[in-house]
Amino acid sequence: MRIIVDAFGGDNAPLEVIKGAAEAVAAYGHTVVLAGNEAIIRQTAKENELSLDGMEILDCEDVISMHDAPRSILREHKNCSMAVGLKALAAGDGDAFVSAGSTGALLVGGTFLVKRIKGVSRAALAAIMPTNKGPVMLVDAGANVECRPEMLHRFGQMGSIYMTDVMGGGTPARVGLLNIGTEDEKGSDLQHATFELLKNDNLNFVGNIEARQVPFGEADVVVADGFSGNVLLKTMEGTADLIVQKLKAMFKTNLFTKLAYLLIKPQMGAFKKLLSTDEYGGAPLLGLKKPVIKTHGNAKANAVKNAIRVAAEFAAADVIGKIEAVVATEAEDEGEAE
Amino acid sequence: MRIIVDAFGGDNAPLEVIKGAAEAVAAYGHTVVLAGNEAIIRQTAKENELSLDGMEILDCEDVISMHDAPRSILREHKNCSMAVGLKALAAGDGDAFVSAGSTGALLVGGTFLVKRIKGVSRAALAAIMPTNKGPVMLVDAGANVECRPEMLHRFGQMGSIYMTDVMGGGTPARVGLLNIGTEDEKGSDLQHATFELLKNDNLNFVGNIEARQVPFGEADVVVADGFSGNVLLKTMEGTADLIVQKLKAMFKTNLFTKLAYLLIKPQMGAFKKLLSTDEYGGAPLLGLKKPVIKTHGNAKANAVKNAIRVAAEFAAADVIGKIEAVVATEAEDEGEAE
Repeated sequence: MRIIVDAFGGDNAPLEVIKGAAEAVAAYGHTVVLAGNEAIIRQTAKENELSLDGMEILDCEDVISMHDAPRSILREHKNCSMAVGLKALAAGDGDAFVSAGSTGALLVGGTFLVKRIKGVSRAALAAIMPTNKGPVMLVDAGANVECRPEMLHRFGQMGSIYMTDVMGGGTPARVGLLNIGTEDEKGSDLQHATFELLKNDNLNFVGNIEARQVPFGEADVVVADGFSGNVLLKTMEGTADLIVQKLKAMFKTNLFTKLAYLLIKPQMGAFKKLLSTDEYGGAPLLGLKKPVIKTHGNAKANAVKNAIRVAAEFAAADVIGKIEAVVATEAEDEGEAE
Repeated sequence: MRIIVDAFGGDNAPLEVIKGAAEAVAAYGHTVVLAGNEAIIRQTAKENELSLDGMEILDCEDVISMHDAPRSILREHKNCSMAVGLKALAAGDGDAFVSAGSTGALLVGGTFLVKRIKGVSRAALAAIMPTNKGPVMLVDAGANVECRPEMLHRFGQMGSIYMTDVMGGGTPARVGLLNIGTEDEKGSDLQHATFELLKNDNLNFVGNIEARQVPFGEADVVVADGFSGNVLLKTMEGTADLIVQKLKAMFKTNLFTKLAYLLIKPQMGAFKKLLSTDEYGGAPLLGLKKPVIKTHGNAKANAVKNAIRVAAEFAAADVIGKIEAVVATEAEDEGEAE
């Protein structure tokens, strides 16, 4: 597989990105195409004794930052590393694309440079979160603040294909609809109409799911509008961060608590893994014609390495071909939104 | 103060409710009026050697359950303990009302039996959650799944009064608007319009707040529609529950981890307190003509005791008089929604 990577996306670019890419090349044998300033990439690799074997570079000067307007990826920053990488992906010069850069810019760039699958009116950001029973996909996690039932239905279909074929080893993913109660009549018109569409589709639909069930892994795909999906994602992150911060402080209180930490340390690895999203590599953008993975803005080498692995799995599982097959028979009667 | 308590609301009624009431009478000197079947209350008190001193009983046979339709509190269950208690409150036979029963029934009962403050179009469920910097009020936490900007503005005003005067000792509460980013332009039309209303009001408005900042206490009042507010509340609860469950299992792994627990135990109290909502007593219903507190369905004696304390503070702070004063000058031009 050839994976294109935005070498200048995220808080720790380019060093951690190059490091993660080198680890991925060594571990999985993929070819990595780094998009970004070649001189800086070579200099960074040299200074940090990182091998660029198995990598190619798409040289470009510009970088789009978190502070730039997302749409500037089509204009002022049309030659930034993210745009150059996405254009190479669209042109067929790679199987998938990974970036830790601005989510908004990646969505705009993905939609207009890579383009959407015919019949998909909006691309979705599909965050993957840890739960008690393995990963859960939250779709949409913030790309579309206002949604219609047909959009949520599509998110459920796409999420189901991804979680079944990429993460689930073929076991049909359990699809749940985020709601404020499990009874069928809960929620607003949006949830009622979406419930009917999901129920009547050929999915492993488990009905409404409350936010408090999500961390316990009661669904593999949680369908939500981007506003409440983002609230769920960020609340899980914030709550876990606070608790971990408090635990760390607690173990540092005195000699007894430090000893307690040493005694519990062998178990801490599994505990930390439960709370970490690094292993999942990042959030796929669903609905585009090519695989795009958004990894966390603060991703370090390990997360980048995993994102490259997941991007390759995304491509290998032919998720996009399967989405195309599903929507071909029932193209949304909506025209193309922006 | 005279606090009316639904003796048959919640999973642990009537025993834990009576126990909590007895503790509240002893600790705070309030008079508690228990609504519910007198024979069962007396029998339960006798069997558990609980004193009913300082309590009165409003005898009634019926109970409304979690499975009954909320509206049945006005019809089939119009003489249930919750309805009888609310009617006594409306008639002036008490200063505040506490129930651990069905939230939906309490909202319907509160709205139609106690009635809303003139100028308030919807009552809100205002959950109070622990954070790193003390309690945060989340309003609305699930009563109103679809909201207009004027409703969210009102929630912010009411929440501000409550958190300033009941929980904040007079320090102006920091009011934040739940959004999917901190920039002014984030969110949908609902957030944009609400942002302007809150900004132009005489509040300590701190702008948009992301869900991940909420557990860190970056606002004292978080204004949200009932759908995303409920998602935030339930996600915090679910995430904390899962982590605590995992921690407990971790400490039980072997002799070393059990020893670790003993060493860390003195610090565990503060940690558990951080995650517990018991101390806050429950969620006020804001917008009604009298103070009503919804305590958790699984509330035990300590939570009931605290709910009675908070209900008395709610009444003593004249929150309702202050809300009336604010809305009197700018009554919402909406008519009465149900």
